[in-house]
Amino acid sequence: MSYTIAEIAASLGAEAFGDTSLRIARLAEPADAGPDDLALATKPAYAEALPQGKARAAMLWDGADWQALGLKAALIAPRPRFAMAGLTAMMDPGEGWGEGVHPSAVVDATAELGDGVTVGPLSVIGARARIGAGTRIGPNVTIGAEAQIGDSGVIREGVKIAARVRIGARVFIQPGAAIGGDGFSFVTPEVSGVEQARASLGDQGEATAQSYVRIHSLGSVRIGDDVEIGANATIDRGTIRDTEVGDRTKIDNLVMVAHNVIVGSDTLLCGQVGIAGSTRIGSNVVLAGQVGVSDNITVGDRVIAGGGTKILSKVPAGRVILGYPAVKMDTHIEMYKHMRRLGRLFQDVAGLKKAVSKTAQTD
Amino acid sequence: MSYTIAEIAASLGAEAFGDTSLRIARLAEPADAGPDDLALATKPAYAEALPQGKARAAMLWDGADWQALGLKAALIAPRPRFAMAGLTAMMDPGEGWGEGVHPSAVVDATAELGDGVTVGPLSVIGARARIGAGTRIGPNVTIGAEAQIGDSGVIREGVKIAARVRIGARVFIQPGAAIGGDGFSFVTPEVSGVEQARASLGDQGEATAQSYVRIHSLGSVRIGDDVEIGANATIDRGTIRDTEVGDRTKIDNLVMVAHNVIVGSDTLLCGQVGIAGSTRIGSNVVLAGQVGVSDNITVGDRVIAGGGTKILSKVPAGRVILGYPAVKMDTHIEMYKHMRRLGRLFQDVAGLKKAVSKTAQTD
Amino acid sequence: MSYTIAEIAASLGAEAFGDTSLRIARLAEPADAGPDDLALATKPAYAEALPQGKARAAMLWDGADWQALGLKAALIAPRPRFAMAGLTAMMDPGEGWGEGVHPSAVVDATAELGDGVTVGPLSVIGARARIGAGTRIGPNVTIGAEAQIGDSGVIREGVKIAARVRIGARVFIQPGAAIGGDGFSFVTPEVSGVEQARASLGDQGEATAQSYVRIHSLGSVRIGDDVEIGANATIDRGTIRDTEVGDRTKIDNLVMVAHNVIVGSDTLLCGQVGIAGSTRIGSNVVLAGQVGVSDNITVGDRVIAGGGTKILSKVPAGRVILGYPAVKMDTHIEMYKHMRRLGRLFQDVAGLKKAVSKTAQTD
Repeated sequence: MSYTIAEIAASLGAEAFGDTSLRIARLAEPADAGPDDLALATKPAYAEALPQGKARAAMLWDGADWQALGLKAALIAPRPRFAMAGLTAMMDPGEGWGEGVHPSAVVDATAELGDGVTVGPLSVIGARARIGAGTRIGPNVTIGAEAQIGDSGVIREGVKIAARVRIGARVFIQPGAAIGGDGFSFVTPEVSGVEQARASLGDQGEATAQSYVRIHSLGSVRIGDDVEIGANATIDRGTIRDTEVGDRTKIDNLVMVAHNVIVGSDTLLCGQVGIAGSTRIGSNVVLAGQVGVSDNITVGDRVIAGGGTKILSKVPAGRVILGYPAVKMDTHIEMYKHMRRLGRLFQDVAGLKKAVSKTAQTD
Repeated sequence: MSYTIAEIAASLGAEAFGDTSLRIARLAEPADAGPDDLALATKPAYAEALPQGKARAAMLWDGADWQALGLKAALIAPRPRFAMAGLTAMMDPGEGWGEGVHPSAVVDATAELGDGVTVGPLSVIGARARIGAGTRIGPNVTIGAEAQIGDSGVIREGVKIAARVRIGARVFIQPGAAIGGDGFSFVTPEVSGVEQARASLGDQGEATAQSYVRIHSLGSVRIGDDVEIGANATIDRGTIRDTEVGDRTKIDNLVMVAHNVIVGSDTLLCGQVGIAGSTRIGSNVVLAGQVGVSDNITVGDRVIAGGGTKILSKVPAGRVILGYPAVKMDTHIEMYKHMRRLGRLFQDVAGLKKAVSKTAQTD
Repeated sequence: MSYTIAEIAASLGAEAFGDTSLRIARLAEPADAGPDDLALATKPAYAEALPQGKARAAMLWDGADWQALGLKAALIAPRPRFAMAGLTAMMDPGEGWGEGVHPSAVVDATAELGDGVTVGPLSVIGARARIGAGTRIGPNVTIGAEAQIGDSGVIREGVKIAARVRIGARVFIQPGAAIGGDGFSFVTPEVSGVEQARASLGDQGEATAQSYVRIHSLGSVRIGDDVEIGANATIDRGTIRDTEVGDRTKIDNLVMVAHNVIVGSDTLLCGQVGIAGSTRIGSNVVLAGQVGVSDNITVGDRVIAGGGTKILSKVPAGRVILGYPAVKMDTHIEMYKHMRRLGRLFQDVAGLKKAVSKTAQTD
């Protein structure tokens, strides 16, 4: 897996300079680069470290003088961060799982595997499951009965996909993700303290303590094409209909998507985000790390929520929010400035009280 | 697995109307319902979608006019949400894991399996483990040496139950849950900066940087009857005694219950809740999503904490709390209202300062 | 595995009193202790429960009168919490996984296993992986191609270690941890709304909605010696270079360490902490439970962050912080006191307005 500078440039639609026959086997940061590596020096600041390494070729920013940097060859792409997508895809060494179905895998006789499917050691594929052509399944994976996975996916080590889950094409599912756990859905025989506290904003009323009874999850999970699901993330089954994740949505590690949630397309759910039951998240949304979203609400398209935001009520489309509870980002910044100045305000008011009481006395 | 309307009504203690011999194979939301489905239209708002589907039978709210809705049969239960528990249990299609012990499972010769226990492919049952009658164990599960699980439980794909863990009857453990990891318990040779900062509320003092030494977990985990544990949740071993989870408590996905924690009965720990070491959570408590609880404190019975609440100190029984740090919900709402009006307050004080300084001058 | 009081004292460097030939098989809390247990009564308050149990021997605090407590033997260590490290290590009963390589494990012919390595049932060791002497690997574990693990480690049930990950000696990796998932790294063809909102602190500008393209992770993960990684925690691969965790750092359950992150040595990341991409965490840092750290920032050495702190910008070395967003702990306490008194402040200002308007009228 090595490529000439010319081949890389052609593949990325980048411009190539110098000795474009130089052969590249690896990408490297400038200071770590060896003579056969392509150094990634896409900003002048990064290029300063080139002399610490031994790079002969680098990817540079638009307008860079590659010769002045002492290089033998260079690549320049208009949006270098975007070029990284193609470049890293070319150079990906893969997982080394081998080809075909490993003899230790337990594949049900009724499962259908497309052309070129690989199944790693000690993985289980259930009855009537269907795996699309070219999908690679790692070791210690469980795929449940009647589950479906589209073409050209990658299912990493220890992933658990439950019965009847349907997943589109070209997905990446990271180690340990659990898709199709049962929803966290329980009910008390009588109206509970939580139901009362929610209705009254804080008062549990006379509700007596009760035990919960399980509502079973009869729905499953439906995941679109080109979706990524992070390590040890969880997506639960719906109660009656399916929980849904739209095309091209990317879900990070340890994210929880609860039962009945619908996530739109082209949305990012970053690390440790939690979406409670029956909530709808729009398309082109970005929820940064550790964002939480209450159950049964709607987060509109193109909403961006900063890290740690707790969304307790509906958010209109296009809003940029932050805080606990979530408010518009500029409101949050203003509230925060005020808080930092509260000490002064208390002093001012104390001073005013003294002045006014004196004025009153002297009147 | 199909039932007549009459059979369903008898099983749920609901009232049946119309052609109660209609046979139901599936539950559906009103708009999605086919002619053999039972549509769930337990509120007038839901019933509005009935014409979009093809339901001939529906579960309705008390007082609904089923004939006016164009149905051939109907069920009415006094608390429809509670009826869902029985209804979904009847209709649950299960995981399709098959019966008996799969030949690829590695069951230690000294393990004791009760009548009707099923063990999925590629699961491991350790020495002297005991599994109660009727418990179903999915694929890729690990059950450690001397672990005990009661009757009629469901242990989903990839669950890890460590040596010596004891679990009651009728539990549901969701995919990837890890029960019996070692506690996060370390100690420095001398008093550490954290110990000093805690004692002084913020000052690390002269503590020099040190390395941590591991305290091994000799206790295990004890889990009651009718408990549910969510996907990829973790419950750690106690240091000397066991970590405990009481009967009928429900734990959601990605929840962390640390070493030595004691959780009472009939408590809900929702998604991504974290309980730090040696803390006690009462019975009939509800901690909503992403709540965090500090170590070595007590949260009383019937406490309800809203989403994202961070509980840093003891909470008396029955309190409804919210915020970071946690305060009574009504206090939180009031504090928040004040914060939203701080801009006005700063303006008012600025105006007062001007007025008072003018008054002083004119005196 | 039982020891005399004399043996224990010698091993811990503790003082022994009374009948030091008493043989101890178990540690216990005072109230639970049987006649062959060592009761842990390292504070006078704990010793009060000794009469409820049957302990004949106890570990006590410096200066305790063991005879007055009715004991036959006692141990006194200068820092009892530190003595617990050695004591619990001696008494640890282990996981009961057995010796050698279980016949059901799938170990690639090119993998190199050191002396005394044990591999549990149904575990997978990939091509050219190297496992150091004495390392114990549990059941259902996956170790990827070319991964390296040092000597004397413990790799618990269901751990997933990806291709090319390098791990030092004497590590403990808890059940279900996933090391070497791909980084959450995506790029849009054009500048995205998030990039604009970050640059402008809240305004998405005219950015049109776009789809994300994957940046593959070519780096791996490098973990030092004596590291602990918690149950279901995740550590992602770096993009070009490795994600790194320094020696003796301890990582708790459900923690996420994102791609390119560098964590120093002797640092504690407590339960559910999340560190976003490319951030650097210093040495001797403590991040308490549910702390979040934004991407591309630096947290200095010896920083201590209280539970739930959200670190959105750089933190200098040695600082003790709390809150969302993070501020110095004493600043946080002051801000919080102010917030609790805002109701009074609003009243005071209202009173002042009335008084001043009256004064103005009477002038």
